[in-house]
Amino acid sequence: MRATDVIATKRDGGELTTAQIDWFINEYTADRLPDYQAAALLMAIYLRGMSRRETVDLTLAMAHSGDVLDVHGDVDFAIDKHSSGGVGDKTTLIVLPIVVACGVPVGKMSGRGLGFSGGTLDKMESIPGWRAELTTEEFLRQLRRHGIVLCGQSANLAPADRKLYGLRDVTATVSALPLIAASIMSKKLAGGADGVVLDVKVGRGAFMPTVERAVELARLMVQLGEDAGKRMVALISDMNQPLGRMVGNALEVKEAIEVLRADGAPDLRAHCLAMAAHMLVLAGAAPDLVNARDMCQARLADGSAWDKFCLLVRVQGGDVRSVEKPTLLPTARLVQPVPSPHAGFIAAVHADKVGMASMALGAGRERKQDQVDHAVGVEVLVKVGDAVKVGAPLFAVHANDPERLVPAHEQLLSAVRWSDAPVKPLPLHYDVIT
Amino acid sequence: MRATDVIATKRDGGELTTAQIDWFINEYTADRLPDYQAAALLMAIYLRGMSRRETVDLTLAMAHSGDVLDVHGDVDFAIDKHSSGGVGDKTTLIVLPIVVACGVPVGKMSGRGLGFSGGTLDKMESIPGWRAELTTEEFLRQLRRHGIVLCGQSANLAPADRKLYGLRDVTATVSALPLIAASIMSKKLAGGADGVVLDVKVGRGAFMPTVERAVELARLMVQLGEDAGKRMVALISDMNQPLGRMVGNALEVKEAIEVLRADGAPDLRAHCLAMAAHMLVLAGAAPDLVNARDMCQARLADGSAWDKFCLLVRVQGGDVRSVEKPTLLPTARLVQPVPSPHAGFIAAVHADKVGMASMALGAGRERKQDQVDHAVGVEVLVKVGDAVKVGAPLFAVHANDPERLVPAHEQLLSAVRWSDAPVKPLPLHYDVIT
Repeated sequence: MRATDVIATKRDGGELTTAQIDWFINEYTADRLPDYQAAALLMAIYLRGMSRRETVDLTLAMAHSGDVLDVHGDVDFAIDKHSSGGVGDKTTLIVLPIVVACGVPVGKMSGRGLGFSGGTLDKMESIPGWRAELTTEEFLRQLRRHGIVLCGQSANLAPADRKLYGLRDVTATVSALPLIAASIMSKKLAGGADGVVLDVKVGRGAFMPTVERAVELARLMVQLGEDAGKRMVALISDMNQPLGRMVGNALEVKEAIEVLRADGAPDLRAHCLAMAAHMLVLAGAAPDLVNARDMCQARLADGSAWDKFCLLVRVQGGDVRSVEKPTLLPTARLVQPVPSPHAGFIAAVHADKVGMASMALGAGRERKQDQVDHAVGVEVLVKVGDAVKVGAPLFAVHANDPERLVPAHEQLLSAVRWSDAPVKPLPLHYDVIT
Repeated sequence: MRATDVIATKRDGGELTTAQIDWFINEYTADRLPDYQAAALLMAIYLRGMSRRETVDLTLAMAHSGDVLDVHGDVDFAIDKHSSGGVGDKTTLIVLPIVVACGVPVGKMSGRGLGFSGGTLDKMESIPGWRAELTTEEFLRQLRRHGIVLCGQSANLAPADRKLYGLRDVTATVSALPLIAASIMSKKLAGGADGVVLDVKVGRGAFMPTVERAVELARLMVQLGEDAGKRMVALISDMNQPLGRMVGNALEVKEAIEVLRADGAPDLRAHCLAMAAHMLVLAGAAPDLVNARDMCQARLADGSAWDKFCLLVRVQGGDVRSVEKPTLLPTARLVQPVPSPHAGFIAAVHADKVGMASMALGAGRERKQDQVDHAVGVEVLVKVGDAVKVGAPLFAVHANDPERLVPAHEQLLSAVRWSDAPVKPLPLHYDVIT
């Protein structure tokens, strides 16, 4: 087989065979094909698209490019979730303990933040001592013994995706739906999932700008997973404004604790209950969504979800006292409110702007190698639809560096739109794709 | 400026600015952009195309990526020719001496053969002692003193084209018209041409398979040249069957000598007169094509074109006796006729098959680093439209290696088609683009 023939086939709008896709991915992962040939193929895929069959083949080739985890010695059904990323999205921190408390063990691999999107591992690492990196043996042992794991991806999980993702990033080929879908689903398949609940975010703070495009991506991923024999469901959820009230690492842990121990922000609580309920249904632990939701609320109410969170902290080396008493978590030196310069109804709180303000305070990364400051971030005190008076606090900025206060303040004000007429609140979810 | 923004603009079907094109070509030539970003841009250009303005900008950026020759100290008007390559195409060896004998000095850079297409320099190098590689200083001095030069491209002529061509070859992005046109024209502009006569071949033995596509490429190159302030004309010429009678290096020199000293093959002679006449008109040395053609025929008849050929051989170190007495040129040990197995009218002599047979005998290169055998090749004894009897010679194979005779014989027979009904001869030219 010759790389130029594979490239030319896709260039001319043809369908690649399973053998061509397997060969290209294997050779590229093994460094036997140069980046420039992969770059030409990626651009051809970007512009010519891929059939459903090709996308499944690409996903499977990428999933099998490294280790494939098999957890069936330890759990009957491996349920997983995936969020396409957003601002204030601490869903995993809440959903995992709930589902585990409902009797469904979960071992989940997660990622770090880049750009204005936060990362689950960065958030958990604001808990002193908590360790994100586990070996495969530690992962499996903890899953068997405690039924709950949250950790980083093992180095040899879908190495083809790692290599291709790096190349897409520098060749303007990131935003092609088949490539996005294959990237996400290959990692889920390599992680051994039997079922996945996808949380596809849409809006200003999400990768997908429109509901149409988010639905298209979600459908493709659901199809991919089902073609690979998995149970799939996707929620299309709003990311025009941040989820919940907190943006920043320790701040988001504190908010997750609020939901687990008390009520927390209504939108965040409702979103987590919906995600957890879908996971229970997919895993066969509840007959339907209504029953599943009741189970989840009961496990929140009786404290058993909270216990599972403490277990997750403890078994991975974290200081449980700091989550029992969150004032022990990293705390910023300066907290400054951002008062509203106008009266009216809140028409927008642009999630991307809030995410960038938080990143500029030090909570996120511009480049992979950057360090994050766990203490800093933004408290979001208004939601779209709220009525505010002049001087009412819109945000509270949590900073360690006084010089970063003013730019964050300005960035946050630029995130808000006011309206004289009443504004309808944003929906939490736009669609469910099964 | 960021490479990904340039790539994304073309990916989305936008028009690149002059500044974007200049920047990308400069950075890539200076090895400050990686091959994979250039590969992604090439595929985006392949699939999205380029406007006329973009193609001119690309051509100029590539032309100025290295040295640009200025011959105006030595000649008033620099006339050049370019052939898109074919089988049996020894046109330059005949046209150059004719034009120079008509009083128009010509300094021409040429190339070597690859695949089944022959290269002018390889042909000339079958003359013992003749040297193709000249420094820029030698080139200019010889042009001033003798008015005739034929040599290889200087190393720093359009280095962007050299780098991009190598990359196109391995990323399936060769056959995009704007990239082909920019590659050819950038070298002509860097070589300092004021006017170019293009010989765009079409058919089985050419890069362009159809007249439509050849005309499209020719129009684009004529436009490009004119937009860059040059005088341009393009002949669309047949390459379904080989040009003339001889294919192979020394064999083609011998055939060129025949045309210059006697009559030679009618098709070859007619094509060379047409090319030379267009060059004279573009250079302003003749008022029109009819006059120009008369001048060329007179210079052939009075022996002055032949004298210029001998001058070209002598000043570049070649042995003039070997062209005066062509039996002294490299000669193959074995000459074997290929008799016709059928009677009828010749319906096709596929130039590509003849070229491959010649290459298999050792006359051409499969890879750049291969050596060529100057003595071997194929004599083509029939043209489309000829009537043949069973046993009449179709070809004569000139070989040095007896083991290569049988495969060449078979390859050559597969090149021929017979018809019971009379067949019209192929036209020499399909169109002239001005």
